[in-house]
Amino acid sequence: MEEIKVFCPATIANVSCGFDVLGLALDAVGDVMIVRKTAKKGIKITNIIGQDLPLATEKNVAGVAGLALLEKSDYSGGFEIEIDKRIKPGSGIGSSAASSSGAVWAMNELLGQPFSNLELVQFAMQGEKLASQVAHADNVAPAIYGGFTLVRSYNPLDIVSIPTPDELFATVIHPQIEIKTSDSRKILKTKLTLETGIRQWGNLGGLIAGLFQEDYELIGRSLEDHVVEPIRSILIPGFDDITSGAKQAGALGSGISGSGPSIFALSQGEVTAEKVAEAMHQTYKSIGIDFDIHVSKVNTQGVKPL
Amino acid sequence: MEEIKVFCPATIANVSCGFDVLGLALDAVGDVMIVRKTAKKGIKITNIIGQDLPLATEKNVAGVAGLALLEKSDYSGGFEIEIDKRIKPGSGIGSSAASSSGAVWAMNELLGQPFSNLELVQFAMQGEKLASQVAHADNVAPAIYGGFTLVRSYNPLDIVSIPTPDELFATVIHPQIEIKTSDSRKILKTKLTLETGIRQWGNLGGLIAGLFQEDYELIGRSLEDHVVEPIRSILIPGFDDITSGAKQAGALGSGISGSGPSIFALSQGEVTAEKVAEAMHQTYKSIGIDFDIHVSKVNTQGVKPL
Repeated sequence: MEEIKVFCPATIANVSCGFDVLGLALDAVGDVMIVRKTAKKGIKITNIIGQDLPLATEKNVAGVAGLALLEKSDYSGGFEIEIDKRIKPGSGIGSSAASSSGAVWAMNELLGQPFSNLELVQFAMQGEKLASQVAHADNVAPAIYGGFTLVRSYNPLDIVSIPTPDELFATVIHPQIEIKTSDSRKILKTKLTLETGIRQWGNLGGLIAGLFQEDYELIGRSLEDHVVEPIRSILIPGFDDITSGAKQAGALGSGISGSGPSIFALSQGEVTAEKVAEAMHQTYKSIGIDFDIHVSKVNTQGVKPL
Repeated sequence: MEEIKVFCPATIANVSCGFDVLGLALDAVGDVMIVRKTAKKGIKITNIIGQDLPLATEKNVAGVAGLALLEKSDYSGGFEIEIDKRIKPGSGIGSSAASSSGAVWAMNELLGQPFSNLELVQFAMQGEKLASQVAHADNVAPAIYGGFTLVRSYNPLDIVSIPTPDELFATVIHPQIEIKTSDSRKILKTKLTLETGIRQWGNLGGLIAGLFQEDYELIGRSLEDHVVEPIRSILIPGFDDITSGAKQAGALGSGISGSGPSIFALSQGEVTAEKVAEAMHQTYKSIGIDFDIHVSKVNTQGVKPL
């Protein structure tokens, strides 16, 4: 195979109580990427449509992730990449992670899969580092593994796939304001009380158990974040109205997607997820904020060929 | 039924990364209790053997837990309790929880099970409050539900049963020094860094996933505690030698049982758990510390009739 076209999913990181460790992949929104082998060494980004992003390899997250892979590979050639960038940068649904993950996943396919998913995550994390100064894995892990993933440990990197209940749908609304991941990390407090910590790991445990047991009520009860949401939600217009409206419309729970400003809700069944979308829509319409909205099944496959 | 004799299991709370939320019940060590109905209202502790503990109802954890149950019951009579106290108070394997849980579980049986397990935990928590000033649930929950339990939330109280892998065995060693739960809580830091918090909920998520998947390696990797163990282990003689010796003998991982001084290790299979016991035995023998040691399957039933 000389060329491959892939779908690179948007992802929701943190998922309320799982700050920096939990993430899930989406099906309804993602980038499209074409990667092809070239005789010439190195990575060349030949075209980006949809967004104004740097073509220079060292300044592009897909380029940087790809270089990390090349460095560990005995492949003597290089790659060309075309990106149809459908996820808006700064939206909080893993825009940089989609490009980084898609690039390394596609290259691995073209090379006959010499690398494991864990290695691909490590390469893609270099793209995350370029985007936000922090090589976090909570978006790239679900983008590559699919479904829900837990980053149990960063050192050594240990990623655990968590099963996805069949009827779980996500609704994500993106108010048209931009928050940079690096900025939204700066406002976080560097300490928390032991009491808050206990609540957080209690909820994270409950969420993991709920996902394994397909216990939608438990998933809903566990979608609480007492560490980050109280601070970051201040940056997001109408946050409380959106989340309380989602709950009223039947959502199991909701929270900030990644570092925001997107807000996600999880629901049992597509019908409820659509009702939640309608409620979110009405809320932002009434306060006059422009937005994109997506309803999506959880994508259990991750990056996939098109 | 007028009288019941029950086994009241010892329990391991915290289980490394699950401070204040996780616990498991043991099979090989516990109290024995006889509870009988009486025409006279109230609770009377008629006999305690094995330990020197108060007979006065209001000063005894079983008495206080029983009174909490009676208060919510329409039963017009009372109960007599005899306790064969085989778990040493202050050992860190849920001595007070065994008595509190056993009392209310037995009373509920004699009354025809009017109360749910969740309600029984709430009654038993009153005994915990008497013992350590804090109405914690991480010992009484596994004592009543059996197996592993997660206290997802205290307010409202939300307890989640976590499945127990079939080959999971615990080894628990109790150095003959006493640490009061109230004292060992005092030395805890009231704050932690966000970075430490992230490691802790990553590990807790990994442990829950490992238990669901019967992934013994993942269980082992997740048995890390960066919050409490670095502080509390200072109070426990030979802690590092015991835990490194356990690991060398094949244990998946280890940690402080409850607030100590007992140390637990989890192993796959009884043979390994016995080897771990032998290694722990040798360590304490070589440094001249007296100890009790137990090897036990995880008790998936909790309090049970004898």
